Amino acid sequence: ARIAVLPGDGIGPEVTAAAVSVLRHVAAHGDHDFEFSEHAIGGCAIDAHGDPLPAETLIVCKQADAVLLGAVGGPQWSDPKAKLRPEQGLLRLRAELGVFANLRPVRVHARLAELSPLKTERLSGVDLMFVRELTGGAYFGAKTRTADTATDETRYTTAEIERVLRRAFQLARTRGRRVTSVDKANVLETSRLWRETAQRVAHEFPDVALEHQLVDSMAMLLLTRPAAYDVIVTENLFGDILTDEAAALAGSLGLLPSASLGEGTRGLYEPIHGSAPDIAGRGVANPLGAILSAALLLRHSLGLAGEAAAVEQAVDRVIDAGVFTRDLGGSAGTREATAAVLAALS
Amino acid sequence: ARIAVLPGDGIGPEVTAAAVSVLRHVAAHGDHDFEFSEHAIGGCAIDAHGDPLPAETLIVCKQADAVLLGAVGGPQWSDPKAKLRPEQGLLRLRAELGVFANLRPVRVHARLAELSPLKTERLSGVDLMFVRELTGGAYFGAKTRTADTATDETRYTTAEIERVLRRAFQLARTRGRRVTSVDKANVLETSRLWRETAQRVAHEFPDVALEHQLVDSMAMLLLTRPAAYDVIVTENLFGDILTDEAAALAGSLGLLPSASLGEGTRGLYEPIHGSAPDIAGRGVANPLGAILSAALLLRHSLGLAGEAAAVEQAVDRVIDAGVFTRDLGGSAGTREATAAVLAALS
Ligand SMILES: CC(C)[C@H](C(=O)O)[C@@H](O)C(=O)O
Ligand SMILES: CC(C)[C@H](C(=O)O)[C@@H](O)C(=O)O
Repeated sequence: ARIAVLPGDGIGPEVTAAAVSVLRHVAAHGDHDFEFSEHAIGGCAIDAHGDPLPAETLIVCKQADAVLLGAVGGPQWSDPKAKLRPEQGLLRLRAELGVFANLRPVRVHARLAELSPLKTERLSGVDLMFVRELTGGAYFGAKTRTADTATDETRYTTAEIERVLRRAFQLARTRGRRVTSVDKANVLETSRLWRETAQRVAHEFPDVALEHQLVDSMAMLLLTRPAAYDVIVTENLFGDILTDEAAALAGSLGLLPSASLGEGTRGLYEPIHGSAPDIAGRGVANPLGAILSAALLLRHSLGLAGEAAAVEQAVDRVIDAGVFTRDLGGSAGTREATAAVLAALS
Repeated sequence: ARIAVLPGDGIGPEVTAAAVSVLRHVAAHGDHDFEFSEHAIGGCAIDAHGDPLPAETLIVCKQADAVLLGAVGGPQWSDPKAKLRPEQGLLRLRAELGVFANLRPVRVHARLAELSPLKTERLSGVDLMFVRELTGGAYFGAKTRTADTATDETRYTTAEIERVLRRAFQLARTRGRRVTSVDKANVLETSRLWRETAQRVAHEFPDVALEHQLVDSMAMLLLTRPAAYDVIVTENLFGDILTDEAAALAGSLGLLPSASLGEGTRGLYEPIHGSAPDIAGRGVANPLGAILSAALLLRHSLGLAGEAAAVEQAVDRVIDAGVFTRDLGGSAGTREATAAVLAALS
């Protein structure tokens, strides 16, 4: 299998290196053949190639079986008036790969409950799977700008809504068989199309329960009743906001993975944390989000569900054992945490 | 002073009646002359007049010094395909009154900390003032719909952004002198205009500190560091989501007021809770959100800051005394809670 690795900016190189070492371990022990190649994206690609998504990177990603990405961005590239921005590379890559469904699981490890801002008793049983539409909406709509006016268009077609909803319903079948579809149907036309489409798609999945929530209510319910939800599916911008809110429940962003999938098995895998420029290059970043993203890569792109589960269990054991990086209140470095995962895997 | 009262749907009539009784008490004891008149809005206005904002209601509101609203909406009017929806009445009223700045204070009463989903230690010192842009953005932009495509346009002009930001900076001067402006400038054109405009307006207020946050980060920071913020200003849709998220911190929506202000002193005041059809007409709704909205009315539209503070202190004393409606874990009815506020005022 060909795996394109895009380390990106900030702590991206450190955490992708950790994830690659775990994948190499899986390959060696299971007699799989993984080929890795590294390519530029984001701010460092702007600096080196004048393009946040160089043509070479895109070609390799399209030919790969899976793409593992670190993070993009940093203060030196974040002038809002700049023509080239690191995020453009990531957004173009998502669109070019056609990965319309962004899966973000959120679980709260019992040993980390005290790090969560939520009261411990609210956390028990929290096991969420967000499915965020990733290649449409305001992110990719027409934009205009004059001296004193700006516009962003949010556009959705029935086909775009159907395919991401089907993915959510399919996932629900492997879990609690409940889908919560989030929109703002009392105000937005795109949300009314979203809701109607969800109602129609639900008929294809009579064994899965569908409920609708307004995005403002959902922002509240994630705090008041986080254990009450299973699969939560929503459009791109709402998903961006709600998944970060839900991520806060886990106690640290450093732990959370994501998988972005399209029609085939090729996927884009990235931890949900950012490039964390303040700690970049110091060997203290939490590698677990990237390692758990590699587990999702094994499961969704390479069909290695057993190996994926083994990596996830190894991470659980490392947390149980209290090997914590600084974001979790410990003093382990990136290398130490990674070594602990490798040891737990053996 | 002329006060237009729009009870609306669900528990709206119960909670506005409570707020009016507090205002009558203030008038009687302070020798002020308040004239109240009641008008239809929302679902009940659709039923009675075929219009969620009847012409008569709008005319009276435009002539009033202040408008006190209960809540609109309910399941019988919430078919997404319906032509007439209760929310349209509220949205049109906001636009027609030109109330572009929606103020939503969020404090967490110490006695109610255990109701909050957040760990108690994170709550100390939380004292937020949201300023949500209320008459622009995706709520009021062009919308299109065909059989298989829908669009919503988000549009902002510099003038719209400036006026709401100035209001936020002015409020910050009466509080902690810090403004956090929330946008999604790494993706949206309207957010880049927002951020540039915020930077420019900040020069008019050298005594107030400005910081920018991305909306996804803010959704997380409200949970991880809620006490770190003072005034938070943002566009309409982001404000809708973030204020509901922040409201969850207070333990119950039933307590939270809002004020919507334009260029003059006329304002629209409403509790942030909805119409709560499940408990409507049963005399158990929490009247404190509506009563605190009446306090904001006294302060912002009638120039009665002392009276406003007296009402707020009376509500604090009622909470201190443990007179709780069901949403706060008590058994007091709407009437009992209102009587307790009136007694505390005397
Ligand atoms: C970096 C940014 C463009 C991106 C997004 O908004 O999608 C990030 O916040 C995310 O959620 O992956
Ligand atoms: C009822 C609805 C249209 C309204 C809004 O979205 O503005 C409500 O959620 C609010 O926040 O006041």
